[in-house]
Amino acid sequence: MKNSIRVVSGIRSTGETHLGHYFGALKNWIALQHQYECFFFAADWHAFTTEYKDTSHIRSFALNNVADWLALGLHPEKATIFIQSHVPEHAELYLIFSMMTPLGWLERNPTYKEQIQQLQNKDLSMLGFLGYPVLQAADIALYRGTQVPVGEDQLSHLELTREIIRRFNHLYGNLLLEPEALLSDAPKLLGSDGRKMSNSYGNAIYLSDAKKVVIDKVMTYMTDPARKRRQDPGDPFKCPLFTLHQRFSGVPVIHDVISGCQTAGIGCIDCKKKLLESLTPWHDAFLERRHDLTVHPKKVEEILEAGVRKATLEAQKTLLDVRGALKL
Amino acid sequence: MKNSIRVVSGIRSTGETHLGHYFGALKNWIALQHQYECFFFAADWHAFTTEYKDTSHIRSFALNNVADWLALGLHPEKATIFIQSHVPEHAELYLIFSMMTPLGWLERNPTYKEQIQQLQNKDLSMLGFLGYPVLQAADIALYRGTQVPVGEDQLSHLELTREIIRRFNHLYGNLLLEPEALLSDAPKLLGSDGRKMSNSYGNAIYLSDAKKVVIDKVMTYMTDPARKRRQDPGDPFKCPLFTLHQRFSGVPVIHDVISGCQTAGIGCIDCKKKLLESLTPWHDAFLERRHDLTVHPKKVEEILEAGVRKATLEAQKTLLDVRGALKL
Repeated sequence: MKNSIRVVSGIRSTGETHLGHYFGALKNWIALQHQYECFFFAADWHAFTTEYKDTSHIRSFALNNVADWLALGLHPEKATIFIQSHVPEHAELYLIFSMMTPLGWLERNPTYKEQIQQLQNKDLSMLGFLGYPVLQAADIALYRGTQVPVGEDQLSHLELTREIIRRFNHLYGNLLLEPEALLSDAPKLLGSDGRKMSNSYGNAIYLSDAKKVVIDKVMTYMTDPARKRRQDPGDPFKCPLFTLHQRFSGVPVIHDVISGCQTAGIGCIDCKKKLLESLTPWHDAFLERRHDLTVHPKKVEEILEAGVRKATLEAQKTLLDVRGALKL
Repeated sequence: MKNSIRVVSGIRSTGETHLGHYFGALKNWIALQHQYECFFFAADWHAFTTEYKDTSHIRSFALNNVADWLALGLHPEKATIFIQSHVPEHAELYLIFSMMTPLGWLERNPTYKEQIQQLQNKDLSMLGFLGYPVLQAADIALYRGTQVPVGEDQLSHLELTREIIRRFNHLYGNLLLEPEALLSDAPKLLGSDGRKMSNSYGNAIYLSDAKKVVIDKVMTYMTDPARKRRQDPGDPFKCPLFTLHQRFSGVPVIHDVISGCQTAGIGCIDCKKKLLESLTPWHDAFLERRHDLTVHPKKVEEILEAGVRKATLEAQKTLLDVRGALKL
C-alpha cells in the first residue's frame, strides 16, 4: 500500500542504458514503484552540465533511456515518468535556490572537486556545473520528495540538498521537506576492464547491444587477473565477471562457479558460458519488450506527455507555495 | 517610426522610485518608447540576489515602480511593460546560459568584487549573486534586445552579456544577437548628502514623497561644502543641489543661479527656493497622475497582465529557437 512517502530520482541523459544503471538504480526503482509514490525522470539538464559542448545526443539518450525503463518494468500507472527539462519549474526553483546557496558550500563539495579532476578532458569550470547540487535540490524539493535512493558515494550530494532545503526553511518558513536517503547497499557492478561500469570508461554492456555484441563482450570480459593459466585457482571475489554472476545467476550456479574457480575445476571460458546461460534469456526478453516500444514510438511519447502533465501539476503546487513564502 | 531596433531594460525592485531613477533611466525609456520597440521590466529576480534575507517588500516595490513609470509617461501601447518573475522563461534561459558561462568570467567581473565590498552588511557570497550577469544576459537575449540603455558604469556588465551571447553563438550556432550599448552620458544626480542618489544611502528624493517632505529634503540638501557663509562665493559645479537645477530649471534660471552663486549674489536658501519653483509643479502633476493609478489599481494590474502576455510570447519564441539549437 502507498503511504505518504515520496521517492524522487533521476538518471543523467549522458548515454544509453547499461547494466550498471539497471542494477545500480532501475531495479530498485521498479521495486519502489509498488510501495511508494514515485517520480522518476531523465535528467537532461544535468546531462547538459558536463555535455554543454555537444548537446546533440542528450535528447535521444533521454528518450531511449525512458523506453528502456519501461521495457525493464517501470510502469506509468505506478510511477510518474518524465523528462526534466519538460517541466520548466525545475529552472525556476533552481534560480530561487541559487539566490540563497552559499558559494562556499558548492566549492567545498567533494564530488565537484573529484569530477573536475576526473574529467580533465572537459572544461567544467562553468557556473552550471558548480551549481549542479542546487539543481538537484530543486529537482527533489519540487516534488516534495521524502526519500531519495542513493548509493554510499552520493550521500554527500544528498546532504547538500538537505542543507539547501534547511536554509530555505530557515529563511522563509518551514515549507519544504528534508529528504532522507534510501541507501542501497548493492556493491558496484564492474565493467569489462575491472573498473566501475560507466559510459565514460567504455566498459559497459548496454541494454541495446545486439545479442552477438553481448556475447563478444562477455567472452572478452576481464576476470581475476591473478589467474593467469587455466590450471591456476582463481578468486571470484577479485573477478569483474563474477559481479555479473552475482546478479544474473541463481544460487546453485553461483555456488558451482565459486568452488570451480577456487579449485581451478572450471576455466574462465566455462564460467563465461555459464553466465550467458542466465544473461541471454533475460536480455532476449528485454529486447523483445523494447522492440515493441521501438515500433510504437507513440506509446513512449504518450507516457511521457502524461508524466509531464502529472509532474507539472505537482511542481506548480510547490512553486506556488514557494512564491507565497517569498512573497513574490 | 519604429524599426528593427529593440531596446530591453529593467530596474531592480529594491526600493521606491526616486529622482535618480527618473533622470538616470526612466526619462530615457519614455523617449525611447516613441522611437523603438521596447521591453521594460521590474527586475524582481535581480532584487532577490541582494535581498534574499528579506524578500517581503520586493513585490510591492515592483508594483509601485511600474505604477510610477506609467504616471511618468511610459505607455503600455508603446512599450511592453512587465514583471520579470512573471515570465518563467527568464529562469530557463538563465539555467541554459549558466551551463556554458565560465566561473572565471564571473569572478573577475569588477562590479561583483565592488558590490561584495560595498555591501558588507549583506552576505552576498551566494551562487545567485555571482550569476547575476548571467541572468542579465538571459533577460536581454530572451527579447532579442539589440540596444541596452546603460551608463558608463554599467558598460562592463553589458560586455559580459555580449561575451556570454557570443559564446552561446559559438557553441550552438549563430542564433542570438549581441546587444549594443545605448550610452547615456547624463552626469550623476547627486543625493542630499552629496553622494550618488541611491536607495542604499538614504539620500534620495522619492517620487512618492509628500509635497512637504520634498520641501524639507530640498531645504536641507547639501550644497557646495566650501561655501561656509552667505557672503562666500560658491561653486555650483561642486554643489549637489545644482545637479537638480540642471534637470528641473530652465536655462535662464540656471544662468541666474550660476552667476548668483559664483558672486555670492544669492544664498543657498534662495537657490533652493528657486529649485522648488520648478520641481514642485512637476511633482504635483506627477502625484496627481499617480493618485489616479492608486485609486484604480486594476488599471496597473491589467497593463501588467497584457505586458506579461506580450513578453511571454516573445520569450517563448526565443526559447523554442534556443532549445532547437541545443537539440533538447
